[in-house]
Amino acid sequence: MRRRGPVTNSEGLVEQALGGNLRALSRLATRLENDPDSTEAIVSKLFPRTGRAHVVGVTGAPGVGKSSVLDGLAREITSRGKSIAVVAVDPSSPRTGGATLGDRIRMSESALDPNVYVRSLASRDRHDGLAPAVADLAMLFDAAGYDYVAIETVGAGQDQLEVADLVHTTVLVQIPGTGDSVQLLKAGAMEIADIYVVNKSDLPGARRVSRDLRSTLSLVMQDEGVWDTPIVLTSRPEGTGFGKLLDAIDRHYSFLEDRGMLADRRARIARSELRRAVERRIRLNDSVNASLVEELVRGIADRAVTPDEAAQRLLERAVQDVERR
Amino acid sequence: MRRRGPVTNSEGLVEQALGGNLRALSRLATRLENDPDSTEAIVSKLFPRTGRAHVVGVTGAPGVGKSSVLDGLAREITSRGKSIAVVAVDPSSPRTGGATLGDRIRMSESALDPNVYVRSLASRDRHDGLAPAVADLAMLFDAAGYDYVAIETVGAGQDQLEVADLVHTTVLVQIPGTGDSVQLLKAGAMEIADIYVVNKSDLPGARRVSRDLRSTLSLVMQDEGVWDTPIVLTSRPEGTGFGKLLDAIDRHYSFLEDRGMLADRRARIARSELRRAVERRIRLNDSVNASLVEELVRGIADRAVTPDEAAQRLLERAVQDVERR
Repeated sequence: MRRRGPVTNSEGLVEQALGGNLRALSRLATRLENDPDSTEAIVSKLFPRTGRAHVVGVTGAPGVGKSSVLDGLAREITSRGKSIAVVAVDPSSPRTGGATLGDRIRMSESALDPNVYVRSLASRDRHDGLAPAVADLAMLFDAAGYDYVAIETVGAGQDQLEVADLVHTTVLVQIPGTGDSVQLLKAGAMEIADIYVVNKSDLPGARRVSRDLRSTLSLVMQDEGVWDTPIVLTSRPEGTGFGKLLDAIDRHYSFLEDRGMLADRRARIARSELRRAVERRIRLNDSVNASLVEELVRGIADRAVTPDEAAQRLLERAVQDVERR
Repeated sequence: MRRRGPVTNSEGLVEQALGGNLRALSRLATRLENDPDSTEAIVSKLFPRTGRAHVVGVTGAPGVGKSSVLDGLAREITSRGKSIAVVAVDPSSPRTGGATLGDRIRMSESALDPNVYVRSLASRDRHDGLAPAVADLAMLFDAAGYDYVAIETVGAGQDQLEVADLVHTTVLVQIPGTGDSVQLLKAGAMEIADIYVVNKSDLPGARRVSRDLRSTLSLVMQDEGVWDTPIVLTSRPEGTGFGKLLDAIDRHYSFLEDRGMLADRRARIARSELRRAVERRIRLNDSVNASLVEELVRGIADRAVTPDEAAQRLLERAVQDVERR
């Protein structure tokens, strides 16, 4: 058995990772994913260095080729001398395992480029929404100096909305032949998409999807008529559309900046960061307060304490935990 | 214009409602639904009186006739000299509006019985999971002395799991001709259902659905083989199956008691009550701390404060809020 090297403290790892050490970056990402207890220390170090990347959500149903869109986008970004890090949320569902693996392999081609960094994250519990580590990893790559940070996630309703709370720009990927835009409208997807991609546009019906989207958009975007949501056709085999997509992404950021709307998006992201930090602080499921939580849960079940009294005790403990440090 | 009467304080309303005053019960329910600021005071009063009702979740896709199942069940319950209160979560989607209205009307027939109380709750934001008021209303009816409290909700994945955290027994309603049990399995519904109902069993295919469920269950329930999940066929027009359903519901409660598993379910419910109370306490979106939250959100967006520092300040305020009272 090989002995593992000494455990580097998080502070040291952050220094190294932000200094450009990819191995340290990778270890830090692993720590953020697997060791919630160290998240606060790491995030507090990273946080002052964040806020420079353009954070982009790429969402869409399984099978639409989100990874190949990101691959094409990554090549376009690097060809312009910029860098991108991708946080990819893998659905752990065995049904899509094959396709996902294929996506990963395609994506890994561009991952040989030092200006592209891809980090896959297992979505362990599909009922639980987006893993908290997704936002933490996006923060890590932002702090590490990547120009773009993309969050790739399956376009299930809840996830999609959560992603919109973490990014400046949301890209919704579709393909020809998978339902019409009215379904998107019903699913609430249209409210959050800043850019549409019709991928696999070499397949028949791509123009029809695009026209359908355009006409539905024109119905929906009455008062919001400020940002003219672009619809971009992409095809990985033909290598088309990715320049236009990157242009649209850049244009959206400029638009937000010019209209003074970037501050709103930043506030929305900040609000979700605050919420996450509060949840972290409460540590309802955490080992530190496990015995207190168990005691309180028993007390509630036995009607010895009301839920609100119990909540108060848990909050007091959460506040004291920090003051004691 | 008619002047409204003096506002009764929550304490007075609770006294009256628990004393059997249906009008006070109804006003209290409205207050729990619409006035989150008063929830804590009401719940603290109610809580010591709760824990006696058998709380049952009734879930299933739109159109399977959850309300008519509850109607049949309510008649059976009252015929045995017991009482039931129903918290019905209405999907606000216009697509199912018609059917839901029809269900309401059918349900209201039995609502003329004083031992049946039905409270419909609008599900305002379908992306947000179950409204917190659902659990609060269940608590109210439990404290008011109803023998059974049923929570009727649309069987969307997230909702279904949330309901399972609030109840002792989960009933999953299906009808012939709507997909096979493998789909249920995939959706995670099989893990939470304690009793299956095949409603509209007068329609062709009911026996097949039942057999299909039975064989899938026998595959799934390997180590859990303790509770033999019943499958009950019901039909509102023919008035059949509701006695068996109530028997199954009662048997499940006895089973939990006998095996010492009721304590686990109670702890699970208590845990979700604690979580809700913590969320209430934080009041991230609440008017009381709105200016502090806005200040903190701005601070985070500007990188003047880390999310964890901001969370700490918010928690300190939440603790002080209570101590100051």
